[in-house]
Amino acid sequence: MSDNHVLLRPRAQAWFETLRDRICGTFEMIEAEQTGPLADRPAGRFERRSWTRPTPEGVEGGGGVMSVMHGRVFEKVGVNVSTVWGEFSPEFRAMVPGAAEDPRFWASGISLVAHLQSPLVPAVHMNTRMLITRHGWFAGGADLTPMRMEAPESLEDAASFHAALRGACDAHGSDFYARFKKWCDDYFYLPHRNEPRGLGGIFYDQHSTGDVEADFAFTRDVGTAFLESYAAIVRRRMRAPWTEADRDHQLVRRGRYVEFNLLHDRGTLFGLKTGGNIEAILMSLPPEARWP
Amino acid sequence: MSDNHVLLRPRAQAWFETLRDRICGTFEMIEAEQTGPLADRPAGRFERRSWTRPTPEGVEGGGGVMSVMHGRVFEKVGVNVSTVWGEFSPEFRAMVPGAAEDPRFWASGISLVAHLQSPLVPAVHMNTRMLITRHGWFAGGADLTPMRMEAPESLEDAASFHAALRGACDAHGSDFYARFKKWCDDYFYLPHRNEPRGLGGIFYDQHSTGDVEADFAFTRDVGTAFLESYAAIVRRRMRAPWTEADRDHQLVRRGRYVEFNLLHDRGTLFGLKTGGNIEAILMSLPPEARWP
Repeated sequence: MSDNHVLLRPRAQAWFETLRDRICGTFEMIEAEQTGPLADRPAGRFERRSWTRPTPEGVEGGGGVMSVMHGRVFEKVGVNVSTVWGEFSPEFRAMVPGAAEDPRFWASGISLVAHLQSPLVPAVHMNTRMLITRHGWFAGGADLTPMRMEAPESLEDAASFHAALRGACDAHGSDFYARFKKWCDDYFYLPHRNEPRGLGGIFYDQHSTGDVEADFAFTRDVGTAFLESYAAIVRRRMRAPWTEADRDHQLVRRGRYVEFNLLHDRGTLFGLKTGGNIEAILMSLPPEARWP
Repeated sequence: MSDNHVLLRPRAQAWFETLRDRICGTFEMIEAEQTGPLADRPAGRFERRSWTRPTPEGVEGGGGVMSVMHGRVFEKVGVNVSTVWGEFSPEFRAMVPGAAEDPRFWASGISLVAHLQSPLVPAVHMNTRMLITRHGWFAGGADLTPMRMEAPESLEDAASFHAALRGACDAHGSDFYARFKKWCDDYFYLPHRNEPRGLGGIFYDQHSTGDVEADFAFTRDVGTAFLESYAAIVRRRMRAPWTEADRDHQLVRRGRYVEFNLLHDRGTLFGLKTGGNIEAILMSLPPEARWP
């Protein structure tokens, strides 16, 4: 295993849990602040459920904690942290760097998807993780999905989201933003619809510059940039009233989100095929969607 | 190409269109008969939209007609008939019998999915088709998805649905029902949830006994048995009032239907990968679904 990454394991895991706590705290504050639509409902609170990895012989263990909130601003937001280890099955060894020589792995990460009550507030996804096989690397990203992708407010939201992620990138590598933005655009795309999932963000995988401390700092900066910029977007938009037509449109757009996650998202398909925690993997699906 | 099947093409296509007309007529009559829940709404009528297969050079053509109804009994029901021909792309030639030697194909068929307003009326799927490559065969089936799979009414509905399909099978082969029922149970299964999609029915593929007239008659009988038994189930259940809890549960079960169709259904994935008509392929998705 990659020694530098192995030494980092406790700090990486602790960071993902710290980031989760900050996110949950900020989102609960936003729930409490709501004075706009649905303010007559109680402010949402996260509920946590821990799970352990099912461990058929030789598979080893680990587990995670799902934090889910059904609120008046956040219709459904799930934040998973998990730390798991074991051996890749033969069918996956060829696909994962370093796993062909030695199937053992260790992985820790955080993943989040938020679907908002308001059709005027973008949905969002963020996920960062550290993986160790014979190699070690970081991976992750964040992307924004406004419901009306051409609206001026959506373009403004996307601009501020990208600016924050660009800041995190630029502090670590002059070409990071351009590369990781393109990777995101390529990845979050529905080929069967010939349309992007949203207005993008960044996506990176197998990130290992040789300086593990720098790579870890970059991943921390991505998490922080995501939280600050997305919280600002929610606060900017959450008080605006919406129409029934906006809601209908939102539910159709959410159908597209379901299509992407079940047809194309490698993380989802990988999780389902490797016997991951179903509830945690499918927490990304929206609370309600329509195919009229 | 298979001569006997080739000669059958106009009659097969005509049958699928005749069956479509009978189904649409029966379902519109059911809409008109409703005196129970939502009877204050207007009775639904089918709307038809024809489409032609996009034809990049060499792909050849064909097309189909989608018939869709949004009614007061049938929340969303789509019936597609299509007749298409061309050449399989290299990636599919190995997967389709007879296509490795000669990539040309001709296919005609009908497919139907109905999602009902009432959580007390089962959803249903039916699909029959004739395919010709160097070989020729029939394929298809029908399966029933009650929302509460353990309810006595659901078991009664499933029993009558299976009895009708068994009748169609028994008239043509003593082992058909047992084989095709098992095939259906194996196929309509969600491995990631470790649960069946519904209460089954029959499923058959590459059906070619050597007697093409008998095979065609079997496929006609499956269509007729489906229509008669399902119409009787709808009429038996559509007037019963339901609760908000029934509806909530229905929307969650429909989420499972989406998961099956996007994660596992070979027809859906094949259609999307071969550039089929998106609206026709995804017409199977429910009008509304929830992942709470």
